[in-house]
Amino acid sequence: MHGTIGDSKSRVRPRVVIVGAGFGGLNAALALKRAPVDIVLIDRRNYHLFQPLLYQVATAGLSPAQIAIPIRRIVARQRNVTVLLDKVTDVDLDAREIVTVRRRLSYDYLILATGARHAYFGHDEWEAFAPGLKKIDEATEIRRRLLLAFERAEVTEDEQERRRLLTFAVIGGGPTGVEMAGAIAELAKKAIIRDFRNIDPASARIVLVEAGPRILPAFPSRLSASAEDQLARLGVTVMTGKAVTDCDAGGITLGEDGRIDSATIVWAAGVMASPAAKWLKTPSDKAGRALIDATLNMPGRLDVFVVGDTASVVDATGRPVPGVAPAAKQMGRHVAKSILCRLRGEAPKNFVYRDYGNLATIGRKSAVADIGRLALTGLLAWLLWSLAHVWFLVGFRNRLAVFMDWIWSYVTYQRGARLITGSEN
Amino acid sequence: MHGTIGDSKSRVRPRVVIVGAGFGGLNAALALKRAPVDIVLIDRRNYHLFQPLLYQVATAGLSPAQIAIPIRRIVARQRNVTVLLDKVTDVDLDAREIVTVRRRLSYDYLILATGARHAYFGHDEWEAFAPGLKKIDEATEIRRRLLLAFERAEVTEDEQERRRLLTFAVIGGGPTGVEMAGAIAELAKKAIIRDFRNIDPASARIVLVEAGPRILPAFPSRLSASAEDQLARLGVTVMTGKAVTDCDAGGITLGEDGRIDSATIVWAAGVMASPAAKWLKTPSDKAGRALIDATLNMPGRLDVFVVGDTASVVDATGRPVPGVAPAAKQMGRHVAKSILCRLRGEAPKNFVYRDYGNLATIGRKSAVADIGRLALTGLLAWLLWSLAHVWFLVGFRNRLAVFMDWIWSYVTYQRGARLITGSEN
Repeated sequence: MHGTIGDSKSRVRPRVVIVGAGFGGLNAALALKRAPVDIVLIDRRNYHLFQPLLYQVATAGLSPAQIAIPIRRIVARQRNVTVLLDKVTDVDLDAREIVTVRRRLSYDYLILATGARHAYFGHDEWEAFAPGLKKIDEATEIRRRLLLAFERAEVTEDEQERRRLLTFAVIGGGPTGVEMAGAIAELAKKAIIRDFRNIDPASARIVLVEAGPRILPAFPSRLSASAEDQLARLGVTVMTGKAVTDCDAGGITLGEDGRIDSATIVWAAGVMASPAAKWLKTPSDKAGRALIDATLNMPGRLDVFVVGDTASVVDATGRPVPGVAPAAKQMGRHVAKSILCRLRGEAPKNFVYRDYGNLATIGRKSAVADIGRLALTGLLAWLLWSLAHVWFLVGFRNRLAVFMDWIWSYVTYQRGARLITGSEN
Repeated sequence: MHGTIGDSKSRVRPRVVIVGAGFGGLNAALALKRAPVDIVLIDRRNYHLFQPLLYQVATAGLSPAQIAIPIRRIVARQRNVTVLLDKVTDVDLDAREIVTVRRRLSYDYLILATGARHAYFGHDEWEAFAPGLKKIDEATEIRRRLLLAFERAEVTEDEQERRRLLTFAVIGGGPTGVEMAGAIAELAKKAIIRDFRNIDPASARIVLVEAGPRILPAFPSRLSASAEDQLARLGVTVMTGKAVTDCDAGGITLGEDGRIDSATIVWAAGVMASPAAKWLKTPSDKAGRALIDATLNMPGRLDVFVVGDTASVVDATGRPVPGVAPAAKQMGRHVAKSILCRLRGEAPKNFVYRDYGNLATIGRKSAVADIGRLALTGLLAWLLWSLAHVWFLVGFRNRLAVFMDWIWSYVTYQRGARLITGSEN
């Protein structure tokens, strides 16, 4: 049988262990398709998640299965890959082994692509009130809270409580926060507009809170301004320059700027890298990302690579590589090439990030796009965003299903996945 | 505003309270579309579930949202319906009120359509090891266990444990059990056949255990025999005349007939009605179903109706009405007509169940159909089953999505929803 785990003595081909089957890890594995190596691809989940569309799951537009594809299916025909459902807990650099909850596994080359999770900057107690949006279970939890808020508003007799239930606070004005705020507004003001008898869902208040001076800080300021306009047209209140100082079951506090009573809070304000740097005992930046060389190696370790959101790297052109999906993909493919170089006895090259532009969607026919010298807003940016996202969804079937779903919601304004599942109350 | 809850004094139109938005309750509400009544439709969930396809969710063929439609969306334009997400705990017949966890609500007519859940015949402790299949959360839990069993089999070094992990036991040879066994066999032997490196999923052992002398006892014995044949061709071991005497974390015990070591057990052996009969303090049969008149009234209470799986009724032709979806739908519509009769001062008629036949699917191109004098098997029965089920899915969109999904799985043998979600390990 191919690639049996734990057969370190009988191996003849070098083993590449890849931890994490996100954009970085998966692309590294795929790029090693014809390489004379045995790959072990490890993930805690059995699926690759198309994270850029996770906000659509959280707002009942898509089902989890539409943006998550079994890792085994993706690499079913790539016989040099063995997929392992397991949780890595440490790396033993001297023994050249990774440690999981179930076993130790030796490697010749190690690629850590373990991503990032949301972070509360020292206030982990806020997580219970303001879940973040990185995993499927988090997205369905946010969906549950969102839909339950309308259900509870429909039946409460208390006007003040009804206002609180119909107030939705999104913390963080990056792309995820902007997408969430826009999608909640469309849900309330379009999709479910006729469904209630005692409340008017369109009266829902959606507040997007950003601590910095403008939303979408990674975009040109003209596009930030356009995004604010487009959000305002959807009925979203954008509050910039306001830092959240407390989150509780009743809402959020903005220091001396007051209080927003809200039953549904979404956290999109910051990320913290996975503990890859800790496993490697290598220096990290303040977001926990491992500081690595321009070759994407851990300094001094030519057999250990770090890619994607858990890596902090300045590329060969001197620019820091941003924590976005295209960068993770490019890094994954670069590392695959580096390993091929090493196998041929050649020196690996430095990584150069190719920036094809930056997109953020706001709602139906509403987005911003920053592509080289081109700055697009509105319908054109939205079409570009839609095409790009449907295109990059791995696998034809999902592409088709998501496309159908979007066409359908576009025509009807309906949402396909309005289910309150999970624990009751 | 329409139908505000709790305005008993200001009401002018009679209020019909319907508890449960399954096939019975929903059809009663829809059939009262033009009636001069105010309807309150109460359910613990925010969706109507197309239960006959729940086994497809449990075996990763469909996503939950494809077989569950928000109740509010279904009745969005039927302005005499108010939907309430709430849990009923009792009925106060003297006050003509229902009691929920949050309120009391008066009724002029009450329709109880609260369905049934699976039952362990006095062994509730088996539920942890052998979940049943009535709710979405149960279906995704079974899916999780099913997929995890293959993942764990892939990595275990213990041959005996691997056999146990690759043994799937389905208890109960009714339509649900037959469908589950067939679908697990197709998952293992077709959909994921190329996905593993250390195990051969096709070597999975699927056992269907039935205590009675034959599977599908509600069908003619010739069709039971055909179903057994069709299951055998899929590689399912059918064991009839074997009663389960114990369930535990390691497998199931069949009294003196031995033991089946299995990591994944599915319970499809029996149902128990919801507590509607207890709320009414009216006699029930041994499955807990309220014994009601042929008019579908609680005896002596012309304003209280019981329909669907929670009702035990002998219809006007003297035959007991079976606990199937078409019967629930017909009962719901009959009660709606009876209420219209009562409003016009006419006497309600007795219910007559129209039996259009009985279908059970086994797998791709494999099913049995018992329609009047017609007994079909194999491809023809399967086509009929597919058409009927896609047709009866409420809502055009879901019909289309399920149809597309089936076409896709038919061509590729793939499964669209192979996600392990929920708590880990």
